[in-house]
Amino acid sequence: MAPTIGVFDSGFGGLTVLRALLTRIPQAHYAFLGDTARLPYGSKSRRTIAKYAAESAQFLVNQQGAEYLVIACNTASALALDAIQEAVPVPVLGVIQPGAQAARAASRTGDVLVIATDATVQSHAYAAACQALGLRALEKACPLLVPLVEEGWTEDSPRHSVTEQVIGIYLDELLMDAAAAYLQPDTLVLGCTHYPLLRPLIESIVPVGMKVIDSAEATAAQAARLFDQENPGAGAPGPSHLGTRECANVHCFATDSVEKFERLGSRFLGCPTGKVELVDLGG
Amino acid sequence: MAPTIGVFDSGFGGLTVLRALLTRIPQAHYAFLGDTARLPYGSKSRRTIAKYAAESAQFLVNQQGAEYLVIACNTASALALDAIQEAVPVPVLGVIQPGAQAARAASRTGDVLVIATDATVQSHAYAAACQALGLRALEKACPLLVPLVEEGWTEDSPRHSVTEQVIGIYLDELLMDAAAAYLQPDTLVLGCTHYPLLRPLIESIVPVGMKVIDSAEATAAQAARLFDQENPGAGAPGPSHLGTRECANVHCFATDSVEKFERLGSRFLGCPTGKVELVDLGG
Repeated sequence: MAPTIGVFDSGFGGLTVLRALLTRIPQAHYAFLGDTARLPYGSKSRRTIAKYAAESAQFLVNQQGAEYLVIACNTASALALDAIQEAVPVPVLGVIQPGAQAARAASRTGDVLVIATDATVQSHAYAAACQALGLRALEKACPLLVPLVEEGWTEDSPRHSVTEQVIGIYLDELLMDAAAAYLQPDTLVLGCTHYPLLRPLIESIVPVGMKVIDSAEATAAQAARLFDQENPGAGAPGPSHLGTRECANVHCFATDSVEKFERLGSRFLGCPTGKVELVDLGG
Repeated sequence: MAPTIGVFDSGFGGLTVLRALLTRIPQAHYAFLGDTARLPYGSKSRRTIAKYAAESAQFLVNQQGAEYLVIACNTASALALDAIQEAVPVPVLGVIQPGAQAARAASRTGDVLVIATDATVQSHAYAAACQALGLRALEKACPLLVPLVEEGWTEDSPRHSVTEQVIGIYLDELLMDAAAAYLQPDTLVLGCTHYPLLRPLIESIVPVGMKVIDSAEATAAQAARLFDQENPGAGAPGPSHLGTRECANVHCFATDSVEKFERLGSRFLGCPTGKVELVDLGG
């Protein structure tokens, strides 16, 4: 029987991680929980985030039967991975470590840039994970990128030139800061689950030769390796595009705002989310 | 003894309403609460918003001695004014009704435009309040404007051209929708507490002759009338600019992120917020 993988985010941005998982482990069942009633985690204390994340993880494991957990939320991965691992008896994977490892594999100079939300940057989780791997990392908060993605002003929109200018401004500032710190960055990590939808625009703007690492993609790749180890022979190579069959294996839950989740989620998941079930975790 | 006016917002944007109140009722004491731990209210359900707003109102009345409440949060005004009025025994004024009344006074054609956050627009509270006054109102959500204000990309920033383009795109779409609905709008209501900081840019972009109504300003004017009625002779004419003396009458509270509140708040208030006190409302 196909195993169930639980995917957790504070919102629906983590559907980009689920999308990457679906292309790599299409035979699994997926339960995705967006704790939309209590987002954004970024402005909350570590203790509060740990409590919310542990409750969410327990819902996925105890009530949805998840045998693996992927924490597709940068803030929860940064501040609550230990608390989640203590709260549930299944393997738990966050997004920070795989992103840093992919940057380590990609970078020749050892200097990397990270763009993320304000909360993720303030946690300095990427800088710490990169440093532990011998990289020097410079992080920058880009608060306009999430609302630009949610407005749909991505590369296939006539409004994308605004988004291009905003990305350009943020990258210019970051590259100037890097030069001032005598860094020679050759790798840019997308440290937010919304940013994969901006990847084509970002790749068209970064300096020639700079590699763009998507944490969602890196996390899915690591999950697939973990999954293959534990289920030898179970993992057939997945399709590169999502079909109806893969998407039928996804069951989405949210703690609030299911309408917005259903309306915007399909752009992140790459196929319709189906009906999103409202759950009450208290609080 | 000078009375205490409680001002409540989900964040610190409502400091623009407090600023307008200070210039009109400078002799009052003010207790401002930003429920920053639980923002954004906009993505939450009516039931959740009503619970949070009632708890916040009770803090201002029961613990800070507020004798009047101004709800400087469009979402709470739209979805929870009844719940707040039931929760506390003092007069409560929201921002929606004053904004609609100011539009009624300004408009000759009877057709008005409203820009606001997604949550405020989805509540259709402005449209309903305008309709009750015999106006036809067309609302538009402008989700990028709040983060642009918080980034500081306003008219005195070198980045303001991005903000100008975004405002232009939103206004063009809104004017096209108005034309398609055979409306002849001559008034634009700023239905979000962050938007007063964009007023110079917005006024430079709207069609010639279109009046711009600021809900924060309209609410303060109505509060001053209410206050003068209940305290005849107490209300001396206020200064048009804020001095140290007026700002000393302000005490700010937040449920989280006091550092960000202190850092960004002064731009909204027009003078330093002073030390922001952290309070725990639970949840």
